[in-house]
Amino acid sequence: MSYTLYIGNKNYSTWSMRPWLVMKHFQIDFTEQLVRFDGFAADSVFKQTILPLNPYGTVPVLTDGDLVVSDSLAICEYLAERHPPLPLWPQNYKARARARSVVAKMHNGFNHIRRHFPMNIEAVLPEIGQIVLRDFPAVKQEIDFLDQHLSSLLAASAGKYLFGEFSIADAFYAPMCLRLKGFQIHTSEILANYINTLCATEAVAAWIAQALEEKDFIAMDEPYRIAR
Amino acid sequence: MSYTLYIGNKNYSTWSMRPWLVMKHFQIDFTEQLVRFDGFAADSVFKQTILPLNPYGTVPVLTDGDLVVSDSLAICEYLAERHPPLPLWPQNYKARARARSVVAKMHNGFNHIRRHFPMNIEAVLPEIGQIVLRDFPAVKQEIDFLDQHLSSLLAASAGKYLFGEFSIADAFYAPMCLRLKGFQIHTSEILANYINTLCATEAVAAWIAQALEEKDFIAMDEPYRIAR
Repeated sequence: MSYTLYIGNKNYSTWSMRPWLVMKHFQIDFTEQLVRFDGFAADSVFKQTILPLNPYGTVPVLTDGDLVVSDSLAICEYLAERHPPLPLWPQNYKARARARSVVAKMHNGFNHIRRHFPMNIEAVLPEIGQIVLRDFPAVKQEIDFLDQHLSSLLAASAGKYLFGEFSIADAFYAPMCLRLKGFQIHTSEILANYINTLCATEAVAAWIAQALEEKDFIAMDEPYRIAR
Repeated sequence: MSYTLYIGNKNYSTWSMRPWLVMKHFQIDFTEQLVRFDGFAADSVFKQTILPLNPYGTVPVLTDGDLVVSDSLAICEYLAERHPPLPLWPQNYKARARARSVVAKMHNGFNHIRRHFPMNIEAVLPEIGQIVLRDFPAVKQEIDFLDQHLSSLLAASAGKYLFGEFSIADAFYAPMCLRLKGFQIHTSEILANYINTLCATEAVAAWIAQALEEKDFIAMDEPYRIAR
């Protein structure tokens, strides 16, 4: 196996972050190919690089020889299958089914939070956070639900993570936690502790450090300011 | 194992349709609990029935004893794991990884088609189809991409389905095919043949027949007419 993982800017790319965290955390060796978000038009270097690999034109993309796997979840499932001794998913089959339900929700839900709180690891924007909560009740509602939901998972967990030890589920929720952190959204104590736990997890800390080293400013990801 | 699958109205519920097709096609025994879409407010019978089971308040939900699995994809992964002799996913690991990529795309993509062409098995609406294509170029663009993408998968397939024999991938694309059929969207011949193949597949034909027997009219799912 010789893996290459194509990702976008670490400061912004929530989807890229997930399989990267899983691979780093479980020490699955790979070559990283960072393709800068220079734009999403057909003639951007980003699209020109990704489209020949992945017809969807998105990152992340994992290649393993001639095999191309697109999408963060499909990549994680592939890795879980190829590395059965590693507990990428919880090992108990019921916990695994619950983790997959929780991950699926992140895979296509929380759209109001996504839209209004783009991940931006470098920025700290408490005022914007408050303005969004004031003006968009649907965002507030999703955050309240998220907090309640994660809190109940954490309360039932045998460890510090959503399902005991770090798993794909935590990798999927890490970008969401960084959104809450960047906009300094008040959460329950149990969720606040979980966000701290995640940020102190080696793979997450490494991603954050590398995001902070980036110098790109992508206007479409930062509607609330005009420069970094 | 004693499965109960909670679903919504067969005429409208694309998400419910997917695991139902998989279970019927692979003859996995289950009890069906159809919860009518009487509304999506907190006091609707629908929400009151589903919320105690699934905090996301959505269908489908699969229960297996005390285990609750929400989300169509998580359910399909669970079933694939619990019934390893059945080829719910393609059996070759590379084909399986590709199928998971394609399924993940359906799980959180094609949002313009979803919004403008709600599944409505009972209705035939060619004029609305043309109006939407005229007024919403993003829908047209997604359909062109979908057609090209499915055509290339079908051209490379060893069978009549996306990855040879019927799999979870086909169950995921079946509702999309019924949207195209209902709005009579013109497609390539290879995709048109695939839609016919799907509709003639026993599990799909059974779902369609049962959808046609329903008498509900749900206004929010039918913005383009005022009665059935």
